[in-house]
Amino acid sequence: MRRVYLDRIAATPLHPQVLEDMLPYLKENFGNPQSLHSAGQEALRAVEEAREKAAQLINCEPSEIFFTSSGSESNNFALKGLALAHRNRGKHIVISAIEHQSVLHSTKKLEKLGFTVSLVPVDKWGMVDAEEVQRAITKETILVSIMLANSEVGTIEPIEDIANICRSRDILFHTDAVAAVGNIPVDVKELGVDALSLAGNQFYGPKGSAALFVKKGTRILPFIDGGIQESGRRAGTENVSGIVGLGKATEIAKKEMEKRIERVKPLRDRLIKLFPQKVEHVFLTGHPKKRLPYHASFCIEFVEGEAMLLNLDMQGIAASSGSACTSRALKASHVLLAMGIDHALAQGSLVFSLIEETKSKDIDYLLEVFPPIIERLRKMSPLYTQYLEEKEK
Amino acid sequence: MRRVYLDRIAATPLHPQVLEDMLPYLKENFGNPQSLHSAGQEALRAVEEAREKAAQLINCEPSEIFFTSSGSESNNFALKGLALAHRNRGKHIVISAIEHQSVLHSTKKLEKLGFTVSLVPVDKWGMVDAEEVQRAITKETILVSIMLANSEVGTIEPIEDIANICRSRDILFHTDAVAAVGNIPVDVKELGVDALSLAGNQFYGPKGSAALFVKKGTRILPFIDGGIQESGRRAGTENVSGIVGLGKATEIAKKEMEKRIERVKPLRDRLIKLFPQKVEHVFLTGHPKKRLPYHASFCIEFVEGEAMLLNLDMQGIAASSGSACTSRALKASHVLLAMGIDHALAQGSLVFSLIEETKSKDIDYLLEVFPPIIERLRKMSPLYTQYLEEKEK
Repeated sequence: MRRVYLDRIAATPLHPQVLEDMLPYLKENFGNPQSLHSAGQEALRAVEEAREKAAQLINCEPSEIFFTSSGSESNNFALKGLALAHRNRGKHIVISAIEHQSVLHSTKKLEKLGFTVSLVPVDKWGMVDAEEVQRAITKETILVSIMLANSEVGTIEPIEDIANICRSRDILFHTDAVAAVGNIPVDVKELGVDALSLAGNQFYGPKGSAALFVKKGTRILPFIDGGIQESGRRAGTENVSGIVGLGKATEIAKKEMEKRIERVKPLRDRLIKLFPQKVEHVFLTGHPKKRLPYHASFCIEFVEGEAMLLNLDMQGIAASSGSACTSRALKASHVLLAMGIDHALAQGSLVFSLIEETKSKDIDYLLEVFPPIIERLRKMSPLYTQYLEEKEK
Repeated sequence: MRRVYLDRIAATPLHPQVLEDMLPYLKENFGNPQSLHSAGQEALRAVEEAREKAAQLINCEPSEIFFTSSGSESNNFALKGLALAHRNRGKHIVISAIEHQSVLHSTKKLEKLGFTVSLVPVDKWGMVDAEEVQRAITKETILVSIMLANSEVGTIEPIEDIANICRSRDILFHTDAVAAVGNIPVDVKELGVDALSLAGNQFYGPKGSAALFVKKGTRILPFIDGGIQESGRRAGTENVSGIVGLGKATEIAKKEMEKRIERVKPLRDRLIKLFPQKVEHVFLTGHPKKRLPYHASFCIEFVEGEAMLLNLDMQGIAASSGSACTSRALKASHVLLAMGIDHALAQGSLVFSLIEETKSKDIDYLLEVFPPIIERLRKMSPLYTQYLEEKEK
């Protein structure tokens, strides 16, 4: 059976060169970067080299990169670290309604500590309007966090505009760029952000290795308190091999990005064009143009995402119905609901996120395999039967 | 030049079988455990198998294990998660004066959120007296956290006695067992603890992979907020290869522990016996008997730890002067100061922590190399000159 992996938003394979760079730090170079002896110094050198590479990818200083263990940790660090460090200036935070759970739940925790949070709505494409952010800001606002790109619907947000507004009001701006960094060009200076989250497992780096960019001079409290690692901002023995892997992944991403986009985008465009032609009652979700180049997402009427995923899996195709971080919860996505998609339709969410290895034939295979699956599932769907009956009237 | 690594407390090499088990999850099995398709299910299966192995090592249920990214994260999770979940019952926490920075600084953060913290003193061996804990407890106390073993001086604390006291007062008890688990037998039921931190890099597992045991039925707030990973208690894409490695390391530790201790302890005992015979003005730190079997620690008069470390390193010997998490801060250890060791002597701290690979000849080499180093350093020491002058009077 053909194996087709279309779940980049959940995980990418590790690039062979990334693994190659990691291996010495899983074998002979096992020192702790904080140790003063040679073994420690070699580990520290490797960590600092990775920091330089990561900094180059997003155009910042190495000292502005803080390594973490996941995009979720980076988001917790940014939201809680910035809010708590600046709470004397005010206690109001603005985020969008489609942020990742790690941003949403971090702000819920902050609410318990006395902060108030405003959710900015999105339009039907999942797009945040910078003017809505402007309107949500009060005299008490100290922090705005809006994601750069949404992994469930692919939409790329107008971060520069929002950052401009924040800067003019002297409000800190963080962006969750986990789905974007390594996949599309991201330049923190052009964007004008104060903090930015990224994660290696989104662009051929290892799981368990991520980072937070914090602009020089920005006060932030540590999230993991303890030792003096990461300039005292993130305690805990460094995951040296993971950091080295993240560094290499950023280096490769910088070099290969343009080529990768040129290759994957036409395949994705073909899928977006042909998929609704092959299956009835299918709607593209997210912005038709301003979207991640590898990302195709749909809502399919009268069927549930989970059933489609399991049937696709039986045909060797790996896809998802939204964020991996909540997929097992089997709830309708807060992102789709915020875009005004009704609850029933939101249950039929499907995301195909292409990887570098995706071939034209893989798309052909998906387009061939999917219609009979949908036909079978719809036959069992009471909603579909009801629709057909109403149509006949 | 002979290479002798005596810095187990900072990092252990990865066991070859651990790396072997990890590799498939750095290569073909790259799925996200939260994905519903086969690639995700295989990753989830691997994570759950690791959880079972980890649970077996400390005699708990797999559902009581929560994977984290470091011992420091586990300690932050335990302290903050338990304190915030139970703050309606009271706002007082008891810890010892020699806890790891990740415990100390977590309680400092909690103090900013309205908690009060009592530090229990230790005796000259770094031993906590259970009765002192008893005395520190007030009606407001909701949480006690005392480490199982101290990595700077090797002392093993009377955890069972302290746990008994806490249980009888209905107070939660957490122990930072990072230096102990995998190296000496640890049984959470025998100890009677509610929460316990452990880390893979302390016993031949990978850096970046650790865990927190939380007893079933114990309320704890998530520390990293977000998705539903780890039963909703710890968000973020799982570091699958790291977790698999931690699992394998626990399995090997369980099987090999007795043999490992039998091998390393006599070497350590020989070092503790001969070291003060080879060098004058040397004192063992920590408890002479109740100490980690691989651990030998000293204070050496009239010289500074850093100078000794760098000179030892030039001879191929890797050692440390205390916790790796603060070693680059070059401050006198809060552990040694709490034990009543004066500031000048505490600067001369040296820890030799043996690994499985340590050979008798390595100890011989250390004993041969060290006296001339000390002689040279003391010649340059104004404190030593002063001592000699006073002695002659």
